Amino acid sequence: MSRKKIILTGDRPTGPLHVGHYVGSLRSRLELQEDHEQFVMIADMQALTDYAKDPKRVRDHVFQVALDYLAVGIDPKKSTIFIQSLIPALSELTMYYLNLVTWNRLKHNPTVKQEITQKGFGESVPAGFMTYPVSQAADITAFKASLVPVGEDQRPMIEQTNEIVRSFNRIYQTDVLVEAEGLIPKIARLPGIDGQAKMSKSLNNAIYLSDAPDVVLKKVKKMYTDPNHLRVEDPGQVEGNPVFSYLDAFGSDQEKIQELKDHYQRGGLGDSVVKKYLADVMLEFLEPIQKRRAEFEKNLDQVVSYVMEGSEKAKAVTEKTLQEVRSAMHLNY
Amino acid sequence: MSRKKIILTGDRPTGPLHVGHYVGSLRSRLELQEDHEQFVMIADMQALTDYAKDPKRVRDHVFQVALDYLAVGIDPKKSTIFIQSLIPALSELTMYYLNLVTWNRLKHNPTVKQEITQKGFGESVPAGFMTYPVSQAADITAFKASLVPVGEDQRPMIEQTNEIVRSFNRIYQTDVLVEAEGLIPKIARLPGIDGQAKMSKSLNNAIYLSDAPDVVLKKVKKMYTDPNHLRVEDPGQVEGNPVFSYLDAFGSDQEKIQELKDHYQRGGLGDSVVKKYLADVMLEFLEPIQKRRAEFEKNLDQVVSYVMEGSEKAKAVTEKTLQEVRSAMHLNY
Repeated sequence: MSRKKIILTGDRPTGPLHVGHYVGSLRSRLELQEDHEQFVMIADMQALTDYAKDPKRVRDHVFQVALDYLAVGIDPKKSTIFIQSLIPALSELTMYYLNLVTWNRLKHNPTVKQEITQKGFGESVPAGFMTYPVSQAADITAFKASLVPVGEDQRPMIEQTNEIVRSFNRIYQTDVLVEAEGLIPKIARLPGIDGQAKMSKSLNNAIYLSDAPDVVLKKVKKMYTDPNHLRVEDPGQVEGNPVFSYLDAFGSDQEKIQELKDHYQRGGLGDSVVKKYLADVMLEFLEPIQKRRAEFEKNLDQVVSYVMEGSEKAKAVTEKTLQEVRSAMHLNY
Repeated sequence: MSRKKIILTGDRPTGPLHVGHYVGSLRSRLELQEDHEQFVMIADMQALTDYAKDPKRVRDHVFQVALDYLAVGIDPKKSTIFIQSLIPALSELTMYYLNLVTWNRLKHNPTVKQEITQKGFGESVPAGFMTYPVSQAADITAFKASLVPVGEDQRPMIEQTNEIVRSFNRIYQTDVLVEAEGLIPKIARLPGIDGQAKMSKSLNNAIYLSDAPDVVLKKVKKMYTDPNHLRVEDPGQVEGNPVFSYLDAFGSDQEKIQELKDHYQRGGLGDSVVKKYLADVMLEFLEPIQKRRAEFEKNLDQVVSYVMEGSEKAKAVTEKTLQEVRSAMHLNY
């Protein structure tokens, strides 16, 4: 067994990955895979807690997300990419953990409560949605992950996982399960091109990693900026201005960016000039990613076999944990 | 594939089986195995929804229950005896079905509501307990069982299962899942020896199939009868009198029993005489069961291998259903 720290991370395959995913998680995965044992989960089962009536959408994005991973440089030799539903131990662990969490506790999970409102479930919240924090605990603990990259708003999920870990280890007098720590990304969430805090498919405000250059140009052109910056000569605001947030996130020429910011704030710099520069920056950033994507698209069998081999490996790791869990529970028949 | 009707039945392994189990379900299983494809589940996972803190108790009774099955004559060549937790498909199906049931629906399941009160869970109902009707739906549908022997109070469970079946088949445009029908036993529930409606370990009012003859004698002797039948010469009541309920359930000499009833109702027949006759009837009923049990106890490896082979068979059947379910959901990677 490697002594590297174990990481579990992943995405729900409900749409293509966008530049917000890159800033929020993909970039750090590229670093983490160098000196950690990283498992990257394509969370199809978790996607179904929300999209049970549209499994085709989930299915269609599973290998698209895998392509996005490979395109940004997640390396199957360093990271294990796998499909959640191909790992039976995750479901079985969820069943055992559901007995260690009260119904009331689930009802008061702050992340879930917020999502219920956002998604407009009303009185029709699926039971699978209410219980997905328990399923996440199964995902994390099955790999004995001690580090889990999450957004600030996902902290309660780590808390729920650790409550289960402590209950399990206490009740079954074992140390099989490992507590996890959230790894909060340094850069705050990238805003949508419309200035909304969240980038999402439903808001139609995202730049996707797979967007063609002309699409990127169009999206940058219509980007939200400082609404009070009406004339070129007016001073503009840099803070909270998505154009500059994107430059901070993707630009490499810090000096040039600072210069633009100063000029914009003084007045005399038009949005269109900054946007033209941002478009160049974005295209430069996306070019190698899309080149790699095109290569992999020519060889989809290879992509499938990376994911299938990763799933086999993930299955073996989690089966081992499951056997330990079952032993602790006296279920080793 | 056999064209026999498929039956799923079973018990939670939380204690030894008693004569109430025999009357309520085991007897009918002996008949059903002759012309049905019968799967008999030792429901260790379901037991854990309630006994998560005492898995040793569950573990200890798994093979005891198997012994009880074999002792009464459930024939592993005709019925498939298996352990629930050895069948991974059941957990995975539960995960998919949880997305098709609302949280509110689970909250209003009448059987679960009643059990929550009985078990005194208060505000601490485990999530696994609230969701066990969904897990039962997985058990039933995984085998495509069309007949499920249940008590009258378990009817809502069949309803919940069929709701899931209909939702699944409608949403995923398939006919993979099969609706089930409850099979309500002809004889009403056998009362406890204390006259309580329910026989249970916690009430300490059961005669177990594995009780030694002297224990049976003692239990019959202290059995509750007609509380108003104070003197031998008084007329006694037969209805609601456990001694006569047991005679009806286990006696073979109908004429003799009718004679005793008449005499008891007329007056002049003491409880001790009827109890002596009942003791003979019970010992005669239990003798062949305990003889078979003793044989199997000498050969526990054989018992284990029956259960393990049954579990392998059950696994194969349920994996087939799971693959069909996954295909319908487009999860056939």
